[in-house]
Amino acid sequence: MGLIDDMLNGSQRALSRLITLSENDEEARQEIIKRIFHSIGNAHIVGITGPPGVGKSTTVDAVVTELRGRGKRVGVIAVDPSSPFSQGAVLGDRIRMQGNDENENLFIRSLASRGKLGGLSKVTNDVVKLLDAFGMDVIIIETVGTGQSEYEIAKMAHTTVIVLSPGYGDGIQAIKAGILETGDIFIVNKADMNGAAHAVKDIVGTVEFNFAVNEWTPPVIPVIAKKQEGIEIFVNELENHYNYLKESNLMEKKSKDRIEQEIEEHITSWIETNVLNYISHSGQKQKIIEQIYQKMDDPISLIHSHIKEMINGNFVK
Amino acid sequence: MGLIDDMLNGSQRALSRLITLSENDEEARQEIIKRIFHSIGNAHIVGITGPPGVGKSTTVDAVVTELRGRGKRVGVIAVDPSSPFSQGAVLGDRIRMQGNDENENLFIRSLASRGKLGGLSKVTNDVVKLLDAFGMDVIIIETVGTGQSEYEIAKMAHTTVIVLSPGYGDGIQAIKAGILETGDIFIVNKADMNGAAHAVKDIVGTVEFNFAVNEWTPPVIPVIAKKQEGIEIFVNELENHYNYLKESNLMEKKSKDRIEQEIEEHITSWIETNVLNYISHSGQKQKIIEQIYQKMDDPISLIHSHIKEMINGNFVK
Repeated sequence: MGLIDDMLNGSQRALSRLITLSENDEEARQEIIKRIFHSIGNAHIVGITGPPGVGKSTTVDAVVTELRGRGKRVGVIAVDPSSPFSQGAVLGDRIRMQGNDENENLFIRSLASRGKLGGLSKVTNDVVKLLDAFGMDVIIIETVGTGQSEYEIAKMAHTTVIVLSPGYGDGIQAIKAGILETGDIFIVNKADMNGAAHAVKDIVGTVEFNFAVNEWTPPVIPVIAKKQEGIEIFVNELENHYNYLKESNLMEKKSKDRIEQEIEEHITSWIETNVLNYISHSGQKQKIIEQIYQKMDDPISLIHSHIKEMINGNFVK
Repeated sequence: MGLIDDMLNGSQRALSRLITLSENDEEARQEIIKRIFHSIGNAHIVGITGPPGVGKSTTVDAVVTELRGRGKRVGVIAVDPSSPFSQGAVLGDRIRMQGNDENENLFIRSLASRGKLGGLSKVTNDVVKLLDAFGMDVIIIETVGTGQSEYEIAKMAHTTVIVLSPGYGDGIQAIKAGILETGDIFIVNKADMNGAAHAVKDIVGTVEFNFAVNEWTPPVIPVIAKKQEGIEIFVNELENHYNYLKESNLMEKKSKDRIEQEIEEHITSWIETNVLNYISHSGQKQKIIEQIYQKMDDPISLIHSHIKEMINGNFVK
């Protein structure tokens, strides 16, 4: 594919088209991964998450500005898993509006859920790979903070950042409920709000209590994202965490965790492509549905006998 | 399994234990489904969803009270997909606190996400089946309103109810963004609030615009759940919708949609149980991870060759 060469040579347009291709065409997707796997592994992957309303988008904007000021090439993937109905971009072009125009050093992509099993995390993983191969230094994955996405990000990112804000009760509740253990760095945004000092103290206490035995104690950083305040300190801590991962054996562990997740997703996707498509197109699915609907036999036995039939047949590509 | 006989004979304790069993033991689960499939298909499955903060829980409480007043046996499944970390119940026992004690005519179960592919909807589906076989007349599935869960409920329920409230900007926004098409009945809770009449009018307008060509135009019902006001009208509409489904061919279509979803989930779960367990336990997964990590070959080719090896082997139970 000439597109891949163009992308590897710095064409943002080729990058865009490859992302769209890999989203829509499984064969093209596999071809792309085969061609780029040698070029990946150099980007710092940063997950930024947190409850709705804490100012994640503003924070990401500010972080992008700071990173670009340091000469970094940055990719942003904005993931909104709460939109199963919209196939396209949902979080929009807000970053561009801040004066951060896209160019060869900044690329932004919004992703929405596909409503398919494993769909979103697979697509996100592909875009991460492409941005990595493209030569981005930092890849930010921003998610709307529901629990599931935080969990998946934690497995995908090198560094997971939890954004909270004072006066937002759910923030502190969420942190207590379980997101806490996935955070490598905590940001308390809107640090000029009433009660900010208290919120920071509260989170520091919780973090210190929970991470007492770890080598890395997550820093808790007050910022005012819309004024760019505290962002420099945060980006320093991002770099500290990346260096910490590289100096310990954790980088290898995180990479292998990501590979493991990818293997499981690939197997599931292989099933979707082969088994589910096969039973749809061969008319077998309609047959099984009808048999179950008529209660001809119990659903488990019916499905199992069809799976065995297919395995023994030669449907496998 | 004697438990199944006990459950079919009305033991709530047996029902509880069967749910736990089917959540934790795939073999037991399949055995249970095989034994009960003849006894299901009689319950009206109602999905109740909507954005956070509109009073879904209070509404469900009020609906349960009304249904029980009509002599119905009711099952409630409270689903909270935003908690991948907590394995247990999260939404708690609030219904009991309203004087609706559990007995053979009322059963409440809270479910949280398992963090597994397809996990939550599979478990929910199983509990629906068990409550159906137990003889519940109405099964309410309540979800915290994020998009993905609404989408899944829409496929699982006969009747999908969207709860909104006035003064809750996101409610109207959500309805415009896409949940709308899944709603069969709309409730505007907190109808004594300022702006309620306006909210109802707004939603009626949107519904009429979107459903103009359908046979069923979703009613928009103002209620004050905590005072039980409007709930009787709502339950009448629930029954109207159920009758409408039975009189048209839509009931069959919905049942078949649910079966289709179940087939896909079962196949995916079969893969998880067989392929993923096999590669984990045989040490193959570690081998593939290491090979991909060392970039010995591209990940796609490596995974494919392992899948083919497994298919050609005799790992399939």
